[in-house]
Amino acid sequence: MNTLRVGLVQMHVGYSKEENLQKAKEMVQKAVSKNAQLIVLPEMFNCPYDNQFFPAFAEEEGGFSWQELSRMALENEVFLIGGSIPEIDDQGCIYNTSFVFNRQGGQIAKHRKVHLFDIDVKGGQYFKESDTLSAGNEATVFDTPFGRMGLIICYDIRFPELARLLVAKGAKFIIVPGAFNMTTGPAHWEILFRTRALDNQVYMMGAAPARNEEAAYVSYGNSIIVDPWGKVVQRMDGEENILIEDLEPAKIERVRTELPLLKHLRQDLYTLTEHPYVTPKNGRY
Amino acid sequence: MNTLRVGLVQMHVGYSKEENLQKAKEMVQKAVSKNAQLIVLPEMFNCPYDNQFFPAFAEEEGGFSWQELSRMALENEVFLIGGSIPEIDDQGCIYNTSFVFNRQGGQIAKHRKVHLFDIDVKGGQYFKESDTLSAGNEATVFDTPFGRMGLIICYDIRFPELARLLVAKGAKFIIVPGAFNMTTGPAHWEILFRTRALDNQVYMMGAAPARNEEAAYVSYGNSIIVDPWGKVVQRMDGEENILIEDLEPAKIERVRTELPLLKHLRQDLYTLTEHPYVTPKNGRY
Repeated sequence: MNTLRVGLVQMHVGYSKEENLQKAKEMVQKAVSKNAQLIVLPEMFNCPYDNQFFPAFAEEEGGFSWQELSRMALENEVFLIGGSIPEIDDQGCIYNTSFVFNRQGGQIAKHRKVHLFDIDVKGGQYFKESDTLSAGNEATVFDTPFGRMGLIICYDIRFPELARLLVAKGAKFIIVPGAFNMTTGPAHWEILFRTRALDNQVYMMGAAPARNEEAAYVSYGNSIIVDPWGKVVQRMDGEENILIEDLEPAKIERVRTELPLLKHLRQDLYTLTEHPYVTPKNGRY
Repeated sequence: MNTLRVGLVQMHVGYSKEENLQKAKEMVQKAVSKNAQLIVLPEMFNCPYDNQFFPAFAEEEGGFSWQELSRMALENEVFLIGGSIPEIDDQGCIYNTSFVFNRQGGQIAKHRKVHLFDIDVKGGQYFKESDTLSAGNEATVFDTPFGRMGLIICYDIRFPELARLLVAKGAKFIIVPGAFNMTTGPAHWEILFRTRALDNQVYMMGAAPARNEEAAYVSYGNSIIVDPWGKVVQRMDGEENILIEDLEPAKIERVRTELPLLKHLRQDLYTLTEHPYVTPKNGRY
């Protein structure tokens, strides 16, 4: 296989779940018409990014939105990374969750956002996800015919440890449904994608909601693809659109040979260890 | 204390050790005349950055260059991070070493470059430090009246684990004598300083040799200071010059409060562990 054509969906997200799913469906079809083999939806693509909506929009795994996503993957015979949606478990905990489907519409992975976004910048952005959400507890990878992929959500990208764990597990691509804002976006969005790509010598892909200046939380947009040398391959602006790009898996090995960072890690001096999650006594992280 | 005035010395390095030391001395004095309280020299400031010169220029700890550095610190009553020089130990191993002196000219820290720079980019840069150098084995921090500082050398910056260890040990500033080249410099120099600053919410300072297009290894220059929000505060070009900047230690705590990344680390899911170095059987890493 020479290239992998990916499609990143940068869509407007409104107050109607059904309309959001319809929009996603149309944009997935458009990406498929451009021969995309793997499609990524943005973070919280079916629900406004706002704590007051997460509980009302939350669904169980296998629920309505999950089924719609599964059908989009099946009908288009495409790998679909379903951005993220509010997921509720049988304990009533709500998560920011990304479901991944193969070409047959089967779920092949699921990532619950591990790092919750609590920020309070003076004169800038305030948001506290932990008011309504619980955190996931796993570093998520999955296999495709194009290679092993890692999956994280938005704020997760700020923690180099998590990307490193995915790469240690063999990820060659890291996918990030995300929604930075107008404070953190211009300051940090591109550089985080570039450095995680560079340090780990992987392709990084970020899909964000389109920018809506009227929303309570204004998404920065700027869906992006960065290559394993840390170079921005393509980057959108704030508008609704689809980013189509051909990735070259061979480039990953080439960069890793020329600049063998991963071989030069001094594992004799430091090691990063993943711990199996242990449920705390109060039942919630 | 409100601010810390630092001076980064971006100097030309030639083939005469004595002339290099004389140049360093003059530039340190010039930085002091501008009231710098802490001065950083570049990587290999007393020796051309080339494997063929490292053995001939190498000195033991406490040798000629070390004494000159100590005197510069003492006579100017300034904290001096002595860039780096080739250091030889009693086993005959050569290291890329940075010595740090306090205002009394006493050595308060020493860092031997931990990650050796071996690179072979097609149509770009080739260099193999490990042909002549041995690697250091410690994550180095030291205390000053301005706060705790971490010290790494050049290629060390490419490994997020090392910066993280320094921050776990309490570093609020990370100093990097470095000499990127005309392949890796334009591609990666700034972004690495910005991301290590951003991820760790520290000030990053990089001092490089001035650019000499005639040299076997052409330094990128671009000595740089980045604040804890990941913003470039000041950056030079390739020319010989001194960068003077007032750092605000209070900004570190402000950023760490507004965007509490270090508190949001999921230490229940992953931990980075530092290991005490154990000498391998062949005596050399």
